[in-house]
Amino acid sequence: METTLMVLDKVNSSKDLKNLSIEELDILSGEIRELILKKVNTTGGHLGPNLGIVEATIALHYVFDTPEDKLVFDVSHQCYPHKILTGRKEGFTNPDKYQKYTGYTAPEESEYDLFKVGHTSTSVSLATGLAKARDLRGGKENVIALIGDGSLSGGEAFEGLDNAAALGSNIIVVVNDNDMSIAENQGGLYTNLKLLKDTNGQAECNFFKSLGFDYYYVDNGNDIESLISTFNKVKDSDHPVLVHIRTIKGKGCIAAETDKEHYHWIVPGELDNDYSPAVSQEESYESITTDYLLKKREQDNSIIAISPATPGVSGFTKEFREKMGNNYTDVGIAEQHAVAFASGLAKNGAKPVLAIMSSFIQRAYDQLSQDLALNNNPATILVFWGGITGADATHLTKYDIPLIANIPNIVYLAPVNKEEYLAMLDWATEQRNYSVVIRVPMCQMVSIGKKDTTDYSVLNKYHVAESGSEIAILGLGNFFRLGQKVKSLLKDKLGISATLINPRYITGIDKELLESLKANHRLVITLEDGVLEGGFGEKIASYYGASGMKVINFGASKEFTDRVPLEELYKRYHLTPELILEDIQNLL
Amino acid sequence: METTLMVLDKVNSSKDLKNLSIEELDILSGEIRELILKKVNTTGGHLGPNLGIVEATIALHYVFDTPEDKLVFDVSHQCYPHKILTGRKEGFTNPDKYQKYTGYTAPEESEYDLFKVGHTSTSVSLATGLAKARDLRGGKENVIALIGDGSLSGGEAFEGLDNAAALGSNIIVVVNDNDMSIAENQGGLYTNLKLLKDTNGQAECNFFKSLGFDYYYVDNGNDIESLISTFNKVKDSDHPVLVHIRTIKGKGCIAAETDKEHYHWIVPGELDNDYSPAVSQEESYESITTDYLLKKREQDNSIIAISPATPGVSGFTKEFREKMGNNYTDVGIAEQHAVAFASGLAKNGAKPVLAIMSSFIQRAYDQLSQDLALNNNPATILVFWGGITGADATHLTKYDIPLIANIPNIVYLAPVNKEEYLAMLDWATEQRNYSVVIRVPMCQMVSIGKKDTTDYSVLNKYHVAESGSEIAILGLGNFFRLGQKVKSLLKDKLGISATLINPRYITGIDKELLESLKANHRLVITLEDGVLEGGFGEKIASYYGASGMKVINFGASKEFTDRVPLEELYKRYHLTPELILEDIQNLL
Repeated sequence: METTLMVLDKVNSSKDLKNLSIEELDILSGEIRELILKKVNTTGGHLGPNLGIVEATIALHYVFDTPEDKLVFDVSHQCYPHKILTGRKEGFTNPDKYQKYTGYTAPEESEYDLFKVGHTSTSVSLATGLAKARDLRGGKENVIALIGDGSLSGGEAFEGLDNAAALGSNIIVVVNDNDMSIAENQGGLYTNLKLLKDTNGQAECNFFKSLGFDYYYVDNGNDIESLISTFNKVKDSDHPVLVHIRTIKGKGCIAAETDKEHYHWIVPGELDNDYSPAVSQEESYESITTDYLLKKREQDNSIIAISPATPGVSGFTKEFREKMGNNYTDVGIAEQHAVAFASGLAKNGAKPVLAIMSSFIQRAYDQLSQDLALNNNPATILVFWGGITGADATHLTKYDIPLIANIPNIVYLAPVNKEEYLAMLDWATEQRNYSVVIRVPMCQMVSIGKKDTTDYSVLNKYHVAESGSEIAILGLGNFFRLGQKVKSLLKDKLGISATLINPRYITGIDKELLESLKANHRLVITLEDGVLEGGFGEKIASYYGASGMKVINFGASKEFTDRVPLEELYKRYHLTPELILEDIQNLL
Repeated sequence: METTLMVLDKVNSSKDLKNLSIEELDILSGEIRELILKKVNTTGGHLGPNLGIVEATIALHYVFDTPEDKLVFDVSHQCYPHKILTGRKEGFTNPDKYQKYTGYTAPEESEYDLFKVGHTSTSVSLATGLAKARDLRGGKENVIALIGDGSLSGGEAFEGLDNAAALGSNIIVVVNDNDMSIAENQGGLYTNLKLLKDTNGQAECNFFKSLGFDYYYVDNGNDIESLISTFNKVKDSDHPVLVHIRTIKGKGCIAAETDKEHYHWIVPGELDNDYSPAVSQEESYESITTDYLLKKREQDNSIIAISPATPGVSGFTKEFREKMGNNYTDVGIAEQHAVAFASGLAKNGAKPVLAIMSSFIQRAYDQLSQDLALNNNPATILVFWGGITGADATHLTKYDIPLIANIPNIVYLAPVNKEEYLAMLDWATEQRNYSVVIRVPMCQMVSIGKKDTTDYSVLNKYHVAESGSEIAILGLGNFFRLGQKVKSLLKDKLGISATLINPRYITGIDKELLESLKANHRLVITLEDGVLEGGFGEKIASYYGASGMKVINFGASKEFTDRVPLEELYKRYHLTPELILEDIQNLL
């Protein structure tokens, strides 16, 4: 059932805004806010960022002539009001259509969306490209980049600003300053943003002016009239301008205004309950990580946990951060710095543990290679959420193995249960010889109930979990359990007692073991929870290439998938025990 | 024969500086300068950066208590004076030892060198890590990061500065401002650096102050006394400080002071000749690239060449840049921006061609994936110098295939001759469906003398150069010629007429062709000028894994090599026709 809305019912594209009065625009902002609250509370999603940007989005579409004028979002998790105003309101008014549109900008949905984005700090660079292309063809449209204060800490944003300011023609950067990253902002820049806000934009020492921008400040960035007035001043500017607007994250929802970090992104139904930050009592890979770090810190002040502005990914709660005190650093959205910082820490005797999401470690490849691995400094990096997912195309987490495992020196480990993970974590932080990355399992935690006493300094020794013959199954990390199921099915259906192997090391080949398999196996299958291309299995196939051993690699294909259910992906990639059995049968 | 030096003979470590008078330090700087000029003119190397930093290096070691106080270099191509002062002067005084030390900082050479570095913009982050580790253990040493003005345009430097400024304890950033990157500086930041220099550091609008640094300025950064005075003021600071020093790149060598870009890095003997920037008459992949772009621009104003501050890599000479005018952009050392900028340009109808060195494209993995490939925008990227080299460990160029080829959507091409390259370049810039990367051959240019009319929009069709049987050779890009030699040897020695294939596409498998080979071949060998792990050959091995076809992958191992002669590497990796033949014979 569609909701009836006094003003929004008249707005089917951004062009319809032009005929509205300020009063109607104010009503519209209330209507949009209600829709967002209702929808996000039903489906889950980004709440705070969208509530804060409602008025600015209305004002931008009111002043500028989108889509001829081009509006580029940063991260784009704040694009819900934009979608509502640009022909996609049914995705918010009609519960049956709640899932129709992605939570990010998507050119395939609308000509109002320029880019598919989901990682931070990119909008200014992308917009600078649009603007330069316009100049080459003699176009006149405005190009606007919207970027949050949190995203400014990312190096790509700085590179973009530095270049945009030197463009010499129209580009309008709107900095949406809500005084928050996902968690608190970190870094010297934020003292300047505070100074600018405290002085109503008048302070002489001004980061944006120092880069060469013509600077405008809007103190109430949730006031449509002020925004319209300022945007009108900069529209059709013949030089780079920057409009710094102060907004309230979570605006209009008391809970979200109060606990900005928690309500950045919520799960379905969260607003109906009294949210209380009770810690889950159930053990998880996150909880055993923070328990380990807190306990370690009691005996060893050189341990230090690091997060690049995403503490939630690794269960680094407020409570944990406070307890760690000086032994916790949030570097802001600055993955490159995070890795180099960890290398420097390790070089000077500290024991850094950087926790990062699989999709974001790819923002620091050169730092992994040059700042860390080339120097072989003993930092520990925990990659969370690595594996095939049904996520949005911008947050896929299946590429970390090719990314990390092909860099020399790095030891990339894939534990399969609680005890193995803790043993690896302990080894990684205590040894001084290698840069170690651990792919924290992304699955239900399994405990085997007895301490793992493996010496992980003996590199590249795979663990034979169960000996057998004919077929050997290499079940890497998350997919070790899939390997168990395949083994069991092989026994039931074909009467084959397969060998089951837990490789543990993603970055090396256990040649001795692989050689020994030749004696009484004719097929090796590899299972990896990630993309096949450049991954683990291909190395096994290459190793056996010149031998008679047959190899089948199972994993994901190299493709961007967009909100495809995990079950469907497993079917597509033959990642169920039954489909794997079929492939084996077809070969035998 | 050792040179006799009045002051330097007394200096065997930085500690010996403390006893010298200012007058002696001045003499010392002259002696060091002479040694650098003589050595670099003999061996080749970085000239301008080292001549400019002589006095600052002396002053730093004079004031600070290295190696207890820790000095981190950015890029570290300006570390020659530092090496001379820290126990390695024989590498400059004794021609027989000229090759003993690397041109970059190297911890294995000296405790005065903290990190192995060669890529830019890393020093502040690395130093912040050192400083934080010091704080955790209650240490008191100074931590100093030296960074050039050119390196400031890289995002990692900004992330580092933003975090360093918020450290709350001792860290001293020295900005060596010689008003140059390798070529001219680009970006809005440089207008602020100019303002600061023009106002003797007094301007209120100050980029560094805006980040929260306590700021010091030294106008004559080649005057030892001024430098000592300022460094003494900031020594043992209890908070982050930044010292901005103005130096003259190439100081003391008129040619290098005059043409700063050319004398940044010179070849042996260059100072003995009158350098004239005559363009080589011989065709090369660089010259046909610039010829193509200039010609294209005459008919099509949407073409735009981009360089991330390394125009020399792709033959983008001053003359070329001037002729391209508005259709050329140097984005500064900002590879992330360069890729996102190209994506924006392509989205808005322009035809961007980004030229970049293999070792530096790895600074923009996330941008290749998210900003470019996910959006499938038709930008063209030319990767120069990709292949196995005898270079320093910091500038290896063998990793671009695993880096790029495992990203979805991207079409990565490997041409083998002039005509193929030009046809691919033309297709890449004209088509609107794919993000295309071309690995520009790093070998003597081969011309086949007739236009290549292949339709490259039919993806992943390998080219069968010569049909045969029994053995198929897949010679990728640079190594197609190696494939030709192997084929010839197979004929001569074993009487086998092998099939020779030019894959052309690094990013895809020609399944039809690979299937057809099964009919009358029993072995496929792959040859790639790059690291094997995650590369091209492993995909072929994986493809044939479940079949009876045998596969041997030839390429480099995953390891950092440091100035190992190419010939030795080819031997180590079995990349000569004779060694490949041996491996084949061992198998057959």
